[in-house]
Amino acid sequence: MKLYDCTMAPNPRRVRIFLAEKGVRVPMVEVDIVAGENLRPEYLAVNPRGLLPTLELDDGRRIDETVAICRYFEETVPEPSLMGTTPLEKAEIESWQRHVEFDGFLAIGDVFRNTAPQFTSRRIAGRSGDAALPALVEQARERVAAFYDALEQRLAASEYVGGPRFSIADITALCAVDFGKWVGLGIPEPHAASLRWYRQVSARPSAKA
Amino acid sequence: MKLYDCTMAPNPRRVRIFLAEKGVRVPMVEVDIVAGENLRPEYLAVNPRGLLPTLELDDGRRIDETVAICRYFEETVPEPSLMGTTPLEKAEIESWQRHVEFDGFLAIGDVFRNTAPQFTSRRIAGRSGDAALPALVEQARERVAAFYDALEQRLAASEYVGGPRFSIADITALCAVDFGKWVGLGIPEPHAASLRWYRQVSARPSAKA
Repeated sequence: MKLYDCTMAPNPRRVRIFLAEKGVRVPMVEVDIVAGENLRPEYLAVNPRGLLPTLELDDGRRIDETVAICRYFEETVPEPSLMGTTPLEKAEIESWQRHVEFDGFLAIGDVFRNTAPQFTSRRIAGRSGDAALPALVEQARERVAAFYDALEQRLAASEYVGGPRFSIADITALCAVDFGKWVGLGIPEPHAASLRWYRQVSARPSAKA
Repeated sequence: MKLYDCTMAPNPRRVRIFLAEKGVRVPMVEVDIVAGENLRPEYLAVNPRGLLPTLELDDGRRIDETVAICRYFEETVPEPSLMGTTPLEKAEIESWQRHVEFDGFLAIGDVFRNTAPQFTSRRIAGRSGDAALPALVEQARERVAAFYDALEQRLAASEYVGGPRFSIADITALCAVDFGKWVGLGIPEPHAASLRWYRQVSARPSAKA
């Protein structure tokens, strides 16, 4: 088994943290996204979408998409559970995981990909030739602000993003926040509950994975 | 239990088809997105993100996000399985479900939301005030074309999108294709395997849900 990884990128980090929480070690193969290695034929033969991470099983079968890879390990290494155990808990964690992906991660990605000089013709992850669209950026900043407001409301009422226990929703949110910091969009100062949560999840050993 | 629904919208339809496949009937409450009912205080009290669908349980708890709602029913009504049974099958279905969401659904949504006269200041679902960005549309059309090419490759090798069995990945893809047809982006004519699949899944009784 091996995991095609990119140390600096937010999505592969989600899987690395998930594996660290499970206590699972998987050999890694580094693919440099900034240098465009993910768009070269060698990697496109592994994952035609050009996205990281990709998990390769011992029989050569491959699973891509961060959350699908996490699901595989949740099913094969159930403890500690990171995606819930009861139907309601599973649904609540999945719901919040998706809030963070769609409202946080995608909006932060829009700011980053449309401003970073490395990606002026690679606005869409896994593709080349899509010119950056500066008109997107201001709207995306507003979406990030709204996301942080919603996150603050949630974390004022819940210890963790997905509910009372640490879960994949926290991993996605932690990686989104640290990704946001690349473009000056960390948790806003007055958001005390979010900052409490951020200190807590950042202090877990898995956060260094 | 009740489901906040919008008959014409693609995401609520995903849940309706999922429920029809499971043989589950849930009372529906119609919310008119085009008229902006989803952005009014009454509905924002139900779902602060202004998105449809939302499931309300008998104890008043709510679950939002299409796939999280489906997960709840997959766990409470396991047969027929629509999200896989083995770890590998679950991961493969989730992976393809997400391919279709990110590469197909989001790109088609970008075309629709940035061209439809009803949404000139509602480019982002669940929000108001985001002006349509026509510059997005051409790139989004290219992403849709690439998505259909990838779907054709998959369906030339696999009976269904998620593997050998009908699954949530097919439901997402069927709703994406029918959404694409709103903006002239149905399955391209030469894509014989995709058209075979489309006829097959459209003929299931659940497709009318």
